[in-house]
Amino acid sequence: MSGNLSIVLHKKGDLRLEEVDYPGEPGPNEVQLDSKIVGVCGSDIHFWKDGGIDKFVVDRPTVLGHEASAVVVKVGSRVSNVRVGDRVAIEPGIACLNCQVCKDGNYNICPDVQFQGVPPLGGSLTRRFNLTAAFCHKLPDNISDAEGALMEPLAVAVYACKRANLIIGCGYKVMVTGAGPVGLLAAMSAKALGAQDVCILDINESRLNFAKQLGISKTILIDSKSEVSDLAKQVIDKFGGQSPHVTLECSGAEMSINLAIHVTRDGGDVVLIGVSNNKVNVNISSAAVRQVNLLGIKRYLNTFPLAIHLVSSGELDIKPLITHTFKLEDGIKAFETARDSAINGAIKVHIRCNQ
Amino acid sequence: MSGNLSIVLHKKGDLRLEEVDYPGEPGPNEVQLDSKIVGVCGSDIHFWKDGGIDKFVVDRPTVLGHEASAVVVKVGSRVSNVRVGDRVAIEPGIACLNCQVCKDGNYNICPDVQFQGVPPLGGSLTRRFNLTAAFCHKLPDNISDAEGALMEPLAVAVYACKRANLIIGCGYKVMVTGAGPVGLLAAMSAKALGAQDVCILDINESRLNFAKQLGISKTILIDSKSEVSDLAKQVIDKFGGQSPHVTLECSGAEMSINLAIHVTRDGGDVVLIGVSNNKVNVNISSAAVRQVNLLGIKRYLNTFPLAIHLVSSGELDIKPLITHTFKLEDGIKAFETARDSAINGAIKVHIRCNQ
Amino acid sequence: MSGNLSIVLHKKGDLRLEEVDYPGEPGPNEVQLDSKIVGVCGSDIHFWKDGGIDKFVVDRPTVLGHEASAVVVKVGSRVSNVRVGDRVAIEPGIACLNCQVCKDGNYNICPDVQFQGVPPLGGSLTRRFNLTAAFCHKLPDNISDAEGALMEPLAVAVYACKRANLIIGCGYKVMVTGAGPVGLLAAMSAKALGAQDVCILDINESRLNFAKQLGISKTILIDSKSEVSDLAKQVIDKFGGQSPHVTLECSGAEMSINLAIHVTRDGGDVVLIGVSNNKVNVNISSAAVRQVNLLGIKRYLNTFPLAIHLVSSGELDIKPLITHTFKLEDGIKAFETARDSAINGAIKVHIRCNQ
Amino acid sequence: MSGNLSIVLHKKGDLRLEEVDYPGEPGPNEVQLDSKIVGVCGSDIHFWKDGGIDKFVVDRPTVLGHEASAVVVKVGSRVSNVRVGDRVAIEPGIACLNCQVCKDGNYNICPDVQFQGVPPLGGSLTRRFNLTAAFCHKLPDNISDAEGALMEPLAVAVYACKRANLIIGCGYKVMVTGAGPVGLLAAMSAKALGAQDVCILDINESRLNFAKQLGISKTILIDSKSEVSDLAKQVIDKFGGQSPHVTLECSGAEMSINLAIHVTRDGGDVVLIGVSNNKVNVNISSAAVRQVNLLGIKRYLNTFPLAIHLVSSGELDIKPLITHTFKLEDGIKAFETARDSAINGAIKVHIRCNQ
Repeated sequence: MSGNLSIVLHKKGDLRLEEVDYPGEPGPNEVQLDSKIVGVCGSDIHFWKDGGIDKFVVDRPTVLGHEASAVVVKVGSRVSNVRVGDRVAIEPGIACLNCQVCKDGNYNICPDVQFQGVPPLGGSLTRRFNLTAAFCHKLPDNISDAEGALMEPLAVAVYACKRANLIIGCGYKVMVTGAGPVGLLAAMSAKALGAQDVCILDINESRLNFAKQLGISKTILIDSKSEVSDLAKQVIDKFGGQSPHVTLECSGAEMSINLAIHVTRDGGDVVLIGVSNNKVNVNISSAAVRQVNLLGIKRYLNTFPLAIHLVSSGELDIKPLITHTFKLEDGIKAFETARDSAINGAIKVHIRCNQ
Repeated sequence: MSGNLSIVLHKKGDLRLEEVDYPGEPGPNEVQLDSKIVGVCGSDIHFWKDGGIDKFVVDRPTVLGHEASAVVVKVGSRVSNVRVGDRVAIEPGIACLNCQVCKDGNYNICPDVQFQGVPPLGGSLTRRFNLTAAFCHKLPDNISDAEGALMEPLAVAVYACKRANLIIGCGYKVMVTGAGPVGLLAAMSAKALGAQDVCILDINESRLNFAKQLGISKTILIDSKSEVSDLAKQVIDKFGGQSPHVTLECSGAEMSINLAIHVTRDGGDVVLIGVSNNKVNVNISSAAVRQVNLLGIKRYLNTFPLAIHLVSSGELDIKPLITHTFKLEDGIKAFETARDSAINGAIKVHIRCNQ
Repeated sequence: MSGNLSIVLHKKGDLRLEEVDYPGEPGPNEVQLDSKIVGVCGSDIHFWKDGGIDKFVVDRPTVLGHEASAVVVKVGSRVSNVRVGDRVAIEPGIACLNCQVCKDGNYNICPDVQFQGVPPLGGSLTRRFNLTAAFCHKLPDNISDAEGALMEPLAVAVYACKRANLIIGCGYKVMVTGAGPVGLLAAMSAKALGAQDVCILDINESRLNFAKQLGISKTILIDSKSEVSDLAKQVIDKFGGQSPHVTLECSGAEMSINLAIHVTRDGGDVVLIGVSNNKVNVNISSAAVRQVNLLGIKRYLNTFPLAIHLVSSGELDIKPLITHTFKLEDGIKAFETARDSAINGAIKVHIRCNQ
Repeated sequence: MSGNLSIVLHKKGDLRLEEVDYPGEPGPNEVQLDSKIVGVCGSDIHFWKDGGIDKFVVDRPTVLGHEASAVVVKVGSRVSNVRVGDRVAIEPGIACLNCQVCKDGNYNICPDVQFQGVPPLGGSLTRRFNLTAAFCHKLPDNISDAEGALMEPLAVAVYACKRANLIIGCGYKVMVTGAGPVGLLAAMSAKALGAQDVCILDINESRLNFAKQLGISKTILIDSKSEVSDLAKQVIDKFGGQSPHVTLECSGAEMSINLAIHVTRDGGDVVLIGVSNNKVNVNISSAAVRQVNLLGIKRYLNTFPLAIHLVSSGELDIKPLITHTFKLEDGIKAFETARDSAINGAIKVHIRCNQ
């Protein structure tokens, strides 16, 4: 049953291209999938380097990969949402769908959720695997496999916008801190979902230039010596004298969080998308007394359909984010390229898992 | 027109009992009020000691007081919600009611809001004053003037519970950190509004004992050397092995905020009611990735009616919180008593402003 | 495998007490249950008399019964919410939990939902059967089997209150039209969930007297010659000169719907719980221009836990509604008693299915 | 003070072009306005023909007109949202903004609301008048006076879409019944606000052709002999085999309401925008049991900003709806033209009130 070429993390620092077993028959609610394109995520690099993130530890050889498009090759007996031959984007957080949290419509915080590429669940960087059908989203013909593999980070960005309750037509100004893949997608999504104005900040000028090419014309370059109060003035200036209603914080950096707290207007929302390994020293009372909310976001909740729609309808052109594509056989090189993105300017690195 | 005995803060440290002018005729949307009972708030003490809080500075002699009951003595031409002779609880944040924020139903974050006792608006620690009628709430006969003066802090507590979306009957466990007046009211309100279980934490054992007398049976004594992970275990133990759905953070202390982030369950809410003057060093990413939301709260939004109901219906008995009452003539002594609450065990100090 | 005594509807008018097969092993997400107490619902009588309701037709022999308590005797391999020996209330609308509607948190309108006692799904009026575990709700020790069998109609009543957004402490006045079992439970639930005042109307004086015994002191007797405008005046009188914020319409009668439209205040909600077989002639434009909403309600959505809480906490005493109890062997007699409730005064008829 | 040329309804059938008094000084929260363009609404024609609508009766000479653009010529002492010289769209429902309903964010159902052109409040078909500033919405330079006068019906259409909770990107299918001005605007707004597909129905083929020119490609011609079940099949066909999620009912006709109830999918919303003078005979239980909600709509609530945005951003081109424009001096002729729209094909008739 071996022969299923995959990218497997054995332990911290020990990433291998090797064959694993092919999956057995899919269960009644499952499908069997052939991977098409899989993106390398920052968290994959963290797992590789550190052997885990927070309480999620790779304690056994685990196939990585959770930003994937695939094609359905078999369907279980109770599956009706997809058919053999359908191309799908994969939502990699597999909830139980039976507990009270799931029935309440909050499956992303299901206590029994499993995530692709985190033990015990294997990922998509393989030739073939099984998955719960409810988390496979059919791709329309006008979305390519490569775009399909971007639905996962786009679903994060879209969910962040939904958490912030952007209201179309009300002149919302949105600040985005951090211009990596998720920050760029968040800025683009905010515009598509009703923000009147978006301003993006980063410490890397080339990323801001990239943002401009994607249509985000308002940018601010941050410096390690920047003062929060000065940055706030620049932001308010960019928004014609107004404070932003919403901040999408995509950096995890202490300075950005303090800026978000400082400059977001009374009653506004800061969505905390970026993550840091450390504690941060922040002026949280300033947020508290002005009813500025610091909202967490766990993956995505029913936002794959919207992500697919935004691309399929032509509102978002996300293809420019894909800067590199490798074959599965060259998967280790893909990981090295993603790891060195600060040097080589990679935005999103893709791996083609099947012909 | 002088002769209106009042407690006036001139500048930092300079608090005087003196006469100010009586108010002129109330405007069309205003009423004229005789103060009855006014509570001394922690923020009044801060103003006295520091001359201001954050950007709110006492830059001219200002009558203090914003936890008040009063009686209506005159009504403006367009007033219909109250009549002469009505006893009222006063909502001291006076919004414009005309801007887009107010029309959207968010008057508490009105950019033109004025607050009693913060220049340019005078407070209730006076014999007689004018105020917008829309912010006067009629008290039923079975609520005393003294209870009426507690509606303001109770409205904060109730608004915190509303922000946290307590859902009756779903077994919600609520942690309250800090057992001062607002913490105690928050714990009592949470129980009345649907929490199944409430656990309150403080560093002061006598306050926890007081909490028990108020019906909050689950308490945890915090120590300056307490470890967050140990406290979390105690909290989960108190809740029969479950993490709290909601934390009402009423201390502003760094340790409490970290505990709230650590122990509140995935997708839960932490309402930040307590305030600190300093930055805090917190593990904000842990909240972010688990979709734990840190919610600010600006005063109260349409929660005076609910606060009045909870007392009038007998669901809450708040009278025990009133530990001291002084005459207006002894107002400075009242402030000193409130200032020294850590020593004298005062919970809520009241001032009677009229016979 | 036969021997499983059950009440089976073969076709219109043909109801039999007979043995059916015992169930096979429960599936991975299923439990096997021994029925305890099952209530006879008005819809059961309709099925018996008419062979179906609307598009739901009994086209094959079908075990009836969907208001049940039961005890778990086996659990499938993936079941974790209940254990063998647990007593449970049964939620009889079995949704797929995998489609987009279910994932959105609206499982009650799942297009693939099956309902107990409607082909192809059998009901609870049997000794033993299998069911999806996610729809079994553990009963606490202080709720009897008989009360457990009332959770189904109570969950309807509670869901109606939730749809109407009752807000505790805001003085909500609630009109309930129809004092049958669901109307009585709706009136009691409204009081428990925050209504300040409830007034119930019916054409049957003995039912109104029963309502008074249950604590609903405001009642209005309707006459077939009653005028909507006169009834409206009586309702407003009962509420001290105010119109109701919410109407819970539990009769399906044209006059009641017109009264609801006429008297519910601007912006208020009418929840349409009662059902009629015929078109009704109603003044729908009067509702439209005053933003009175006519809200449908399909069964219940996550309201069993709240129903269980209301009884377990002692807020609701529902036992008086159970007027008759029969053994399963006398099941046909139980149906006849329920059918003749207008004559014999039966409110809720129960059948004991196991010792 | 006379000399203020206006269109005044004296009583049923008695419409006059005559001079009324100029307004006095605006109050502190008011502005003084010079009317620019005012549209003739179907309700104006009803008032003219019938002397009133429902409980709203013209019991004294009253200036008509409530679909207006204007220019600010004076501002009261407390006005800050507009300045002299600003062109504005007028929101003609003037709420008190001080009562509990208004403070709750529901000013459209304020019990003390006054409406322009309904006694005692005069309308905009005059040279100059005063109005509460909070209900004047600044027009950007790229919206003409004529378009500004269409903001009122567009705000209705937009509010209807908001009530129906259209969710962008989820493939919402929206049926619109009635292709008059509001129906056309509703269809256009639904597309702009996230509907995937819109189908409009009318009994008048030329209106459907007009709808096609406005970009609503899916149309169905209704016949007085149409069967609801046949129409439902056509609608489902147009939507590729799916039922609509939402119906925007803009006709008030019995057949349309029954169609809406019949064809809207389980859990969907029917917004009742159209109004009829009579009771209708409808299958309301069919809506009830499938949780199809019949939602009323009272004017508009905070939707003028969104209406202005949709036109200003270029998403909606509403100019084609304006088929006729008259001078104020020819105002009676304008009313006659609007009255005879079934004959002359008028969609929206405008009156220019100032140079």
